[in-house]
Amino acid sequence: MLVSTVEQIRQMEIRGAGRIARAAAGALADHATVVQSTELNDFVGEMEQAANLLVATRPTAVSLPNAVHLVMAGVQTARTLEEARSGIIASASQFITSSEQAVQRIASIGARHIRDGDVVMTHCNSEAALACILEAHRQGKEIEVYATEVRPRNQGLVTIRTLNDAGIRTSYIVDSAVRSFINEVDLVLVGADAISVNGAVVNKIGTAQMALAAHEARVNLVVAAETYKFAPLTILGNLIEIEERPAEEVLTASIASTLPHVRVRNPAFDVTPADYVDLIITEEGAIPPEMAYIIIRDHLGWSIEQFDRPAHGADQKE
Amino acid sequence: MLVSTVEQIRQMEIRGAGRIARAAAGALADHATVVQSTELNDFVGEMEQAANLLVATRPTAVSLPNAVHLVMAGVQTARTLEEARSGIIASASQFITSSEQAVQRIASIGARHIRDGDVVMTHCNSEAALACILEAHRQGKEIEVYATEVRPRNQGLVTIRTLNDAGIRTSYIVDSAVRSFINEVDLVLVGADAISVNGAVVNKIGTAQMALAAHEARVNLVVAAETYKFAPLTILGNLIEIEERPAEEVLTASIASTLPHVRVRNPAFDVTPADYVDLIITEEGAIPPEMAYIIIRDHLGWSIEQFDRPAHGADQKE
Amino acid sequence: MLVSTVEQIRQMEIRGAGRIARAAAGALADHATVVQSTELNDFVGEMEQAANLLVATRPTAVSLPNAVHLVMAGVQTARTLEEARSGIIASASQFITSSEQAVQRIASIGARHIRDGDVVMTHCNSEAALACILEAHRQGKEIEVYATEVRPRNQGLVTIRTLNDAGIRTSYIVDSAVRSFINEVDLVLVGADAISVNGAVVNKIGTAQMALAAHEARVNLVVAAETYKFAPLTILGNLIEIEERPAEEVLTASIASTLPHVRVRNPAFDVTPADYVDLIITEEGAIPPEMAYIIIRDHLGWSIEQFDRPAHGADQKE
Amino acid sequence: MLVSTVEQIRQMEIRGAGRIARAAAGALADHATVVQSTELNDFVGEMEQAANLLVATRPTAVSLPNAVHLVMAGVQTARTLEEARSGIIASASQFITSSEQAVQRIASIGARHIRDGDVVMTHCNSEAALACILEAHRQGKEIEVYATEVRPRNQGLVTIRTLNDAGIRTSYIVDSAVRSFINEVDLVLVGADAISVNGAVVNKIGTAQMALAAHEARVNLVVAAETYKFAPLTILGNLIEIEERPAEEVLTASIASTLPHVRVRNPAFDVTPADYVDLIITEEGAIPPEMAYIIIRDHLGWSIEQFDRPAHGADQKE
Amino acid sequence: MLVSTVEQIRQMEIRGAGRIARAAAGALADHATVVQSTELNDFVGEMEQAANLLVATRPTAVSLPNAVHLVMAGVQTARTLEEARSGIIASASQFITSSEQAVQRIASIGARHIRDGDVVMTHCNSEAALACILEAHRQGKEIEVYATEVRPRNQGLVTIRTLNDAGIRTSYIVDSAVRSFINEVDLVLVGADAISVNGAVVNKIGTAQMALAAHEARVNLVVAAETYKFAPLTILGNLIEIEERPAEEVLTASIASTLPHVRVRNPAFDVTPADYVDLIITEEGAIPPEMAYIIIRDHLGWSIEQFDRPAHGADQKE
Amino acid sequence: MLVSTVEQIRQMEIRGAGRIARAAAGALADHATVVQSTELNDFVGEMEQAANLLVATRPTAVSLPNAVHLVMAGVQTARTLEEARSGIIASASQFITSSEQAVQRIASIGARHIRDGDVVMTHCNSEAALACILEAHRQGKEIEVYATEVRPRNQGLVTIRTLNDAGIRTSYIVDSAVRSFINEVDLVLVGADAISVNGAVVNKIGTAQMALAAHEARVNLVVAAETYKFAPLTILGNLIEIEERPAEEVLTASIASTLPHVRVRNPAFDVTPADYVDLIITEEGAIPPEMAYIIIRDHLGWSIEQFDRPAHGADQKE
Repeated sequence: MLVSTVEQIRQMEIRGAGRIARAAAGALADHATVVQSTELNDFVGEMEQAANLLVATRPTAVSLPNAVHLVMAGVQTARTLEEARSGIIASASQFITSSEQAVQRIASIGARHIRDGDVVMTHCNSEAALACILEAHRQGKEIEVYATEVRPRNQGLVTIRTLNDAGIRTSYIVDSAVRSFINEVDLVLVGADAISVNGAVVNKIGTAQMALAAHEARVNLVVAAETYKFAPLTILGNLIEIEERPAEEVLTASIASTLPHVRVRNPAFDVTPADYVDLIITEEGAIPPEMAYIIIRDHLGWSIEQFDRPAHGADQKE
Repeated sequence: MLVSTVEQIRQMEIRGAGRIARAAAGALADHATVVQSTELNDFVGEMEQAANLLVATRPTAVSLPNAVHLVMAGVQTARTLEEARSGIIASASQFITSSEQAVQRIASIGARHIRDGDVVMTHCNSEAALACILEAHRQGKEIEVYATEVRPRNQGLVTIRTLNDAGIRTSYIVDSAVRSFINEVDLVLVGADAISVNGAVVNKIGTAQMALAAHEARVNLVVAAETYKFAPLTILGNLIEIEERPAEEVLTASIASTLPHVRVRNPAFDVTPADYVDLIITEEGAIPPEMAYIIIRDHLGWSIEQFDRPAHGADQKE
Repeated sequence: MLVSTVEQIRQMEIRGAGRIARAAAGALADHATVVQSTELNDFVGEMEQAANLLVATRPTAVSLPNAVHLVMAGVQTARTLEEARSGIIASASQFITSSEQAVQRIASIGARHIRDGDVVMTHCNSEAALACILEAHRQGKEIEVYATEVRPRNQGLVTIRTLNDAGIRTSYIVDSAVRSFINEVDLVLVGADAISVNGAVVNKIGTAQMALAAHEARVNLVVAAETYKFAPLTILGNLIEIEERPAEEVLTASIASTLPHVRVRNPAFDVTPADYVDLIITEEGAIPPEMAYIIIRDHLGWSIEQFDRPAHGADQKE
Repeated sequence: MLVSTVEQIRQMEIRGAGRIARAAAGALADHATVVQSTELNDFVGEMEQAANLLVATRPTAVSLPNAVHLVMAGVQTARTLEEARSGIIASASQFITSSEQAVQRIASIGARHIRDGDVVMTHCNSEAALACILEAHRQGKEIEVYATEVRPRNQGLVTIRTLNDAGIRTSYIVDSAVRSFINEVDLVLVGADAISVNGAVVNKIGTAQMALAAHEARVNLVVAAETYKFAPLTILGNLIEIEERPAEEVLTASIASTLPHVRVRNPAFDVTPADYVDLIITEEGAIPPEMAYIIIRDHLGWSIEQFDRPAHGADQKE
Repeated sequence: MLVSTVEQIRQMEIRGAGRIARAAAGALADHATVVQSTELNDFVGEMEQAANLLVATRPTAVSLPNAVHLVMAGVQTARTLEEARSGIIASASQFITSSEQAVQRIASIGARHIRDGDVVMTHCNSEAALACILEAHRQGKEIEVYATEVRPRNQGLVTIRTLNDAGIRTSYIVDSAVRSFINEVDLVLVGADAISVNGAVVNKIGTAQMALAAHEARVNLVVAAETYKFAPLTILGNLIEIEERPAEEVLTASIASTLPHVRVRNPAFDVTPADYVDLIITEEGAIPPEMAYIIIRDHLGWSIEQFDRPAHGADQKE
Repeated sequence: MLVSTVEQIRQMEIRGAGRIARAAAGALADHATVVQSTELNDFVGEMEQAANLLVATRPTAVSLPNAVHLVMAGVQTARTLEEARSGIIASASQFITSSEQAVQRIASIGARHIRDGDVVMTHCNSEAALACILEAHRQGKEIEVYATEVRPRNQGLVTIRTLNDAGIRTSYIVDSAVRSFINEVDLVLVGADAISVNGAVVNKIGTAQMALAAHEARVNLVVAAETYKFAPLTILGNLIEIEERPAEEVLTASIASTLPHVRVRNPAFDVTPADYVDLIITEEGAIPPEMAYIIIRDHLGWSIEQFDRPAHGADQKE
């Protein structure tokens, strides 16, 4: 079960920072149930191994270590194996619930930024960003959406299906056509995989180009992101690692083998500077991107002192 | 033969503004040979019909009406059918030759803009732009190329094959990854399908986004374009029409049929403003984009007075 | 009395976010004195009706609901009619006093940003911005001011009278001449009607254009604004409504009646993005615009949890 | 008659660079008819005095010296008084005709830049710019216009009346509201009073701010201007003088008299840099602004050698 | 000893905001040891005189008043001369230690922003910035540095010696060559002499130009600065004074004396706006520049209320 | 004599593109006088060797090959040795005269761009730029100049001496202080060593940074340059080579020898893009930088056809 979740995350069958985080929490709870240990130490060791396995699946999505950190938080101080086990299960359940509520709350806040008659552009398949759009539509606002193809994994297909099923008028374009249509757009609304302490937004490759085109045309860009997308270790200077995915996603192996001088570069994410972000909508309210430091400090509850203690361990985690 | 060329251009089996122009010239010559007319008037009528058919295949590529205009130039003043026929054949042959020489000359000029050790980024599959890169490589300069996928028709595959076969180190990326790699690039080098009187460059969708990202990172963008890519009628205010190609290029009909609220928008080209273009390399030398008016006037030999005469006809042509 | 204040605010006889807020507080205190209720419930109902009436006069000025909110704060928990009445009167008095002190404190801080010999440009007739200029002048600094006409209500006339009476050398220009003189200006200093959680400043129409011209010419723009100009509900995603005032302010009815195809658009305010704002001076100190969230949280004492409770009511308020 | 034309131009009863130029040409023709001289020398002297009087009325509108220069061109080489007189009358007539044709031709070119469904913004009351809009409307294109008030002389009133009478849907806004509506606009279309050799456009105060706002929002700005709006002497380094008009246009004398520390600054024009101009439409075709030098050299027929001769005289003229 | 420290700071023999602060703290401790007073009042008076002397040496470096403030903090509440003396000595020692630790911590955080293979550009001779570079090198990262000459005092010579001695490949350029090499640079890393509440960074003259060139070329600029570089009084509107140093640093007196119409302007620092700063690395973690207000409030422990009390005294201090 | 001129140019004792060009012309004339050949072929060979020697001294200054080209133009077609000799002497004399007249004419045009009361900033020691300033001063305009030090050769010293001797109020600043003073400047006026076909200006290192700072602050930059500064071969794609001068100019050999890991990078020039240039003033009039192609074609008399013939020879020349 743990193994299958690990594999599904790695293969992008489970996709999206929020869904990944909840799947990891669920997998830890499941694993806690099935682990055969009879000793506390043993159990803790097994669980930490599982946690590390999960965290290693996708290097960029900070929701993963944040979720695992939260679920595993009480395990060190548990006095009995049962206390540790039930603690993990309870924390996981609580994380999943609050993650789902966060999306609803973001939807409710974000929908207010979409006015009747607006044309919204989005990229990739962000649960939080789509929730805002769907909520605005549910409220009866007449809206229209431009959605991109999102090469190489074509997550745009999932997005347009969701929008179509909700009955929202949608235009589907290739990623390179963003600038051609941006002047017809009133608002760009995207999600995030990770947010740095300085408000830089790591999201699906292509987001930064969309942000740049929006900025050039004076179109606001709003990011919808749960607070557990903020990356605490960036306060310590850690750079968010941009995952580079297999070449096969872009070029079939059979073609690639005929092109010895060609290598595929396939970064899954890019970095949008805070300058191009008007607002980040979290479940704690809408904030300017520069407020990321406060979110990390006040809502994720991690401080620089805390980091000092397990410095190397913390590093390994992210 | 004419019909098959028309179809090949429309289906993009013949692609690239230069190749289209030469194919059209060739098709007119072939057609002149096979037309069964015995009267001059008849012959001219047949040829003009053929010319109109060719011009209508792709609305954006201005090389098409420019080439057809040149090949057909003498037909009105021919006194005999044979004179008209041989005139067309000779003009077509001359156009094809000078078009090929133009590419060579552009290659020789453009190669000087590529320094030893440079990393060059290109988009789509421009004959003229690639000629510059290949010539620089041939001169022994150590260069590296970033080439994009070019959705939805993936012309990037043709480009990387050409580069690979020349032994040039190439990185292949999706269109939305341009901004992620632009800081590693020394020069962006692209072709053009049409150039407006104010130096705006119409080229494959995605070019404008690449130009914007290059501009943001202070990377020069050079356009390689034969003079017959310049659009004379833009002096008269004509806007260059951006061809919108079939939805099926982006979304299969079977998927599309399940998505009634989704429409595909598939413009084949976009417009890069002169502000983002450092230089245009033509066979007449390198010029700043704002010099487009002079190229049209001095090298295409068309003046505003000329336009006045067949005003409506001219309009129909483009 | 209440009715006349309501009318004066609506007709812009009472103008300026600070003056409006104090007038509203005063009107509530007056109203509390004259309301004829003998029952607490009745009294509270009457007062809430009055509060709603006041809040509805001008939709953009957030100082209005902020002030009303503060004055009415204790009324829910009052146990007797007299307690409620005296509570309102005391709160109103305190708000007025602290509002006036805020202006003085802003003047003292803002004056330090004006150096001897500076040329300052201002727009509209901001009490807080003018207080800074007057204080700098009072300190003996040799300064010069550019003031705009401020169509359609010509508040600039009030501003130049104030400046003239203080003996400050002033140049008076039409609104569209801002860019022509901005290179002679050392500092732009304006007020605010409302400030969003992301530091965007809502102020008299024309402010954003002045900010843009200042930004283009590398001239700093400083906003002088009491903390009650910050809009708490923007944390919940609420957009600040831009009041559109009567057409007659721009075009007389008699002319308008002869122009059936013409409509007047008369927004009273515009939105200056935080990017164009160097600093906001509040009575709590000078802050970067991005710090708006902290001002709302720490100085207005409203948190997202608080909002959750009367969610719909809160919405109606703003 | 000459005197009354001079006065009407000065008082802005005759307004707009084209109308002023034609009025001046007409006044010279009239004057040539009525001048009582019996000697050629005398006649020439009288006419030159009249020419100087006209040129001095408005310092910025370069159409004035250009028109006068053209009308007076043959007078120096005339051998008899009658030849001089009839030459002036013929030149004036020819100038007026070709000026009117120029507007029609500009209208025909400019209308092609307005697409069906476009929203166009304009400023002031440019004959050439309005002609483009009216022609596009006449062709059946569904268009909408934003027109500004144009303080302090409110030329916008004339513009909206013209648009209304043509049945074009028009929104009327104060000058400072341009940035608030620019994102709804597809094209900005304005006229010019003078164009410098480097493509900088001198036009009614407020144009540069509109251009800046358009540039910020990636909206194209097109200038409609007859070739006689280009200023030959800028090749010699002459700066185009910006006329500063009477304070009374902005502030009544009675109010001004109560404000000793206030002076009105009332420049009638501002300068839009070529960077913010997409295209200039002349009767000779659409050109990029940087092509101004070629227009002056090839179409106004003045060269630097020519300037050398009457260097000081030339200076006085402009 | 005090006198010699004062002189060394003024003559820039002791240079760099951190070294100055520690030297001042040390000098106060030394002075406390040698002061001959026998009365507490007397002692306090002597020490305050010494403090004022130190603070007056360099007007821009805010580390100086911040350090002096900290060392002198307990002196007012001391009940005996010995308590005051030992308090000063202890505070000074603690300040020096924590200042040194701050540099180490910044080095450890900053080094993470330097990737293997990076080319780093720096300006002047910042202890904190160099510590980051040296730490990255110590960790085995292959890096290369561009260092500027830093006219007129040529601090770049000290910087390249340090880098050379560590074995780091370094290119040495004149200050005006920054833009020529910035495209080869991956990261600009500089120190700070003072940081304003809005995140504006005051540092050695030339920093702002480097920041501008980096911004133009999309190269990130990171500032390394201990928290005591943040200027609390900027919350009160105080402008950071830019020290103008003697003309002789730029032009020898003998040459200057032959040039009566020439004056030297020699500001030692300039101001880089927050817009051009990606991140500030402090010992409390990496933060966006806009977070300066929070650093001052939470880490320097000064609030606006505190300022209110000794308002004038506080002013004199900075 | 030839040798000494060659050496003086290389050692920068003769400096400035105009002075270098005239010195080279003079040296060729001198050399023609002293060459001992008795055969025409011999003489031509000697002279060509001399020409090549001169051209090789400074790679960037295009005035050098342009002048040499002009002086040597008739030598190929001369039929006798004496004809060749006297042709060279006459051409050289004519070049020197027209070069001096060009400076005067530029001064006369450029002075019109300097208004009474203007503050002008300049860089390096441009003959043409200074001539404009001196002419404006001579005309009685009250002006003030900011001049930079111009490391590493300190040409600024020569500039301030010239300005001082003319009695012009001058501020002398280090190169890195440009951005600190640019807001006080009305006009930046510099010379050029070479101008590319796209209007890019090659001038003393530091010019591009000044241009960038001017652009950021909306200050116009005007370039004063004789037409022989335009580089014809850039039409053929040739890049203007940026001369890198000896390390000793920046770092004494004795210091350098102690710093094995440090290398000096000492480019003598940089490239200012046309975007940052408002106008180029030539002796043929003021033009926008994009008009460079026309200057080369019409005033230097070289066309692309001409280049084709001696293609390789032409290359060697530049």
